[in-house]
Amino acid sequence: MTHPVLINGAWVASETAETFQAINPTTQETLPGVFPLSPWSEIDKAIQAASDVAKEVRGWPGSRFAEFLNAYADEIEARADDLVAAAHAETALPVSPRLKDGELPRTTNQLRQAAEAAETGSWRSPIIDTATGIRSVLGPIGPVVVFGPNNFPFAFNGIAGGDFAAAIAAGNPVIAKGHSSHPDTTRIFGEAVVAAIQKTNMPKALVQLIYRTSHEDGYKLVSDQRIAASGYTGARHTGLKLKAAADAAGKPFYAELSSINPVFILQGALAERADAIADDFSGSCLMGTGQFCTNPGMVIVPAGSEGEAFVKSVAERFQNAAVGTMLGEGVQKSFAHGIETLKKAGAVVETGGEPGGGNGFCYQNTLLTVPGSLYLKNPEVFQTEAFGNGSLVVLADDVDQMKAIAESLEGNLTGCVYSDTAGADDDAYRIVEPALRTKVGRLLNDKMPTGVAVSAAMNHGGPFPATGHPGFTAVGLPTSAARFGMLMCYDNVRPNRLPEILQDKNPSSATWRRVDGQWTTDDVS
Amino acid sequence: MTHPVLINGAWVASETAETFQAINPTTQETLPGVFPLSPWSEIDKAIQAASDVAKEVRGWPGSRFAEFLNAYADEIEARADDLVAAAHAETALPVSPRLKDGELPRTTNQLRQAAEAAETGSWRSPIIDTATGIRSVLGPIGPVVVFGPNNFPFAFNGIAGGDFAAAIAAGNPVIAKGHSSHPDTTRIFGEAVVAAIQKTNMPKALVQLIYRTSHEDGYKLVSDQRIAASGYTGARHTGLKLKAAADAAGKPFYAELSSINPVFILQGALAERADAIADDFSGSCLMGTGQFCTNPGMVIVPAGSEGEAFVKSVAERFQNAAVGTMLGEGVQKSFAHGIETLKKAGAVVETGGEPGGGNGFCYQNTLLTVPGSLYLKNPEVFQTEAFGNGSLVVLADDVDQMKAIAESLEGNLTGCVYSDTAGADDDAYRIVEPALRTKVGRLLNDKMPTGVAVSAAMNHGGPFPATGHPGFTAVGLPTSAARFGMLMCYDNVRPNRLPEILQDKNPSSATWRRVDGQWTTDDVS
Repeated sequence: MTHPVLINGAWVASETAETFQAINPTTQETLPGVFPLSPWSEIDKAIQAASDVAKEVRGWPGSRFAEFLNAYADEIEARADDLVAAAHAETALPVSPRLKDGELPRTTNQLRQAAEAAETGSWRSPIIDTATGIRSVLGPIGPVVVFGPNNFPFAFNGIAGGDFAAAIAAGNPVIAKGHSSHPDTTRIFGEAVVAAIQKTNMPKALVQLIYRTSHEDGYKLVSDQRIAASGYTGARHTGLKLKAAADAAGKPFYAELSSINPVFILQGALAERADAIADDFSGSCLMGTGQFCTNPGMVIVPAGSEGEAFVKSVAERFQNAAVGTMLGEGVQKSFAHGIETLKKAGAVVETGGEPGGGNGFCYQNTLLTVPGSLYLKNPEVFQTEAFGNGSLVVLADDVDQMKAIAESLEGNLTGCVYSDTAGADDDAYRIVEPALRTKVGRLLNDKMPTGVAVSAAMNHGGPFPATGHPGFTAVGLPTSAARFGMLMCYDNVRPNRLPEILQDKNPSSATWRRVDGQWTTDDVS
Repeated sequence: MTHPVLINGAWVASETAETFQAINPTTQETLPGVFPLSPWSEIDKAIQAASDVAKEVRGWPGSRFAEFLNAYADEIEARADDLVAAAHAETALPVSPRLKDGELPRTTNQLRQAAEAAETGSWRSPIIDTATGIRSVLGPIGPVVVFGPNNFPFAFNGIAGGDFAAAIAAGNPVIAKGHSSHPDTTRIFGEAVVAAIQKTNMPKALVQLIYRTSHEDGYKLVSDQRIAASGYTGARHTGLKLKAAADAAGKPFYAELSSINPVFILQGALAERADAIADDFSGSCLMGTGQFCTNPGMVIVPAGSEGEAFVKSVAERFQNAAVGTMLGEGVQKSFAHGIETLKKAGAVVETGGEPGGGNGFCYQNTLLTVPGSLYLKNPEVFQTEAFGNGSLVVLADDVDQMKAIAESLEGNLTGCVYSDTAGADDDAYRIVEPALRTKVGRLLNDKMPTGVAVSAAMNHGGPFPATGHPGFTAVGLPTSAARFGMLMCYDNVRPNRLPEILQDKNPSSATWRRVDGQWTTDDVS
């Protein structure tokens, strides 16, 4: 039997005849669950229900959404075993620590941080100008569509992850589009959502779930006049097409598309602690079989004996490390294609370079090298993203070439610089850093980029094509919620008609407001 | 002789043979100044120079940009007579109070507010998370292109107005594209810019000026990889084409496109003070010959005797008011086309409806009416923007129909509700306001929308198609400057390498930072 979809609060049989099944990446066997490809008639119902909910909840206090988010986190924890088992079967990601002890607690923690942001309005930036009688605040933008990626079945899931938490915290209904590679995981989240909606008396269509659409219907969905915005994490090719459709309709489309996350290792750092850095880099690059948006896909090291020794040292670690199973056949093929592209352009395989080496869908841990001068002849091609357990080392002749490489970069989520601790690299840092800074959303020192803390100061974003707009982060409350707000200004509006958060009396001592240029939790006097 | 363009700090003869001249809208005579249409080779030089400047000024303190902005405001005041004379000749806008006593002081005031935002970093939202060692702040996005509109030769001029001030405050070089209808005004600003750059030792290509490009070169300009973002205020048709080009390249394009600024007048307000509201509305609608982005182009009043009396009363005021001169032939034609579209759809002319009635390019003050039921049969057509001294009155049968009209609206910059002061309209307000709220950036009570205060709480923005993104304002420092920032996160970056604004010691007691969730001007302890 085909699993139903969650439309307007009910699990309803899909109107479609078209279905799909997920594949266990380890055994390469088709999993039993059968899931529908929703036709437009069904998507249209979901849009209408979301649009009705957006009108219904206009002006509701953030505490209502906070209650839901907290209850949902509880429900997820109650279903933890089911979720972990389903996600492991569908993604091959390890049960422990990854799914059970890492990603699941991260996900519920994120939902609870979103609850706090909703409760205190910390994402809303209230501004009060008493001289002009003008007050403004971010309010809910309207129905949001969230597309989750394949690589984080919990923390970025369209129905449970960062964009979801941010959109709900901002007071919006969500239509979640599950990723086709882990539909059963997504289905269990859907059950937990329904329980949380019921327990907290929220509108039944606050969260809806579909598993798959045709490409054309995806474009129609994100550009529908009743939809206000979308969040997307996934492949660049697909994301750009959806973005184009949304852009043409004037709908914000927050997309996280691709990133190779360059790591610059300066001469002094290599001289000081090459082994430690090789450990750091190998661990970061192979963790989760390299399937992180922030995986270090390009490392720039000084050419010469120390750089060559570093490459050898990393290659050994790659050879000695187990080859992980990839998320699916598509990831394996795409990774292989990326590696082939780099090879054709002149990159040399130091280790790996062939499919296989582990269980199920897999590809050898792969390290490539290219001289800096060759890289600079063809920087676009050498920035081809190979999403998986591999990386390209660029051997730079000198610091100026490192700078030129930094200047050649597309927009990335992250960029790192390793330098020696005694200051010998300080001049080089001052040359490389300014060029790198404007190319990346998050700049790191002496640390690999794979950890993405859920912090208000986090930027999981960056210039195009890492994302579609360099001003926003997809991770970190309360900042990420601002993406799903619209700026609502009140000019000469009578005091009793203002939203509570803009009235003279501050509704909560935990709510910061900018009153006449000063941030305060006080009432307006 | 053709006027030169301002490229890389020098007034250079344009490489073009193609030129244009402005027209005096009152006399309809061609003005003497000859201005070039810049070819791509010239635009390309400007882009490269701007790109070089962006690299040069990376990390410069905001105080440098503040000094420039203040010096520029001084230079503008020194050239006030020239600017007012040129703008009056090119736009027909009255010398006083409009240009001399209104728009010019507004413009210099805006530049000085931008200076303060640059100085204190109040636009940058610094966030410090001591637990994770992550800190973030908005930093300059890179070279910005600003396209100014025809209707504010000073306050929205590409080289002096709101977008310009915001982009510079955020530490970015600007390529200004002057509006073809007032090139000589823009040229004088260019001279003042050069003087201010010299006095404050800023990079000579910080501000560059071109007067006109081909359409194709405009698309190339906003999507060039060296350009970071654009600001545009102008016609919807042109703006959407530029936006599509910028969107495809992943470049933020902040566009202010069109708005009819609906005004809802509730029954009790009409009963209480119909004459005062008629005064208010007529004044707002005819001010500046109606050529404001926030001109009240649609008024919704209750049908019946009071509504009809209001229409008559406004029509009389329209007849008695002088007919202003429009900005140019294009505006007159476009206004006439808008009025014809409304008439064809069934709107009835209460007064006006024909070209002429004043000096130069002009069209009678025009008031149209349409029954609410007819409006709702064709809401898209009845929302045709007629930019000028006219408005459409929709006669609504009841409050529910008013709500339906609000729900039918496209995104607008503003929306107003007039209600009686004793509370008789409170129920109706509660029905109409929620529907209107999500359609407009700024909601007003008992006040016409034409005044746009330069306030931190202002929202001169709104949902598409009023603008391209509902989260941003084009007016009001420091908020408007955030559009031209990218989010820069520092993760584990060594303390002495952090930008000053993120170091433990707060560089200025006037700088607010969010430290561990609390806004403060203190140092991090």
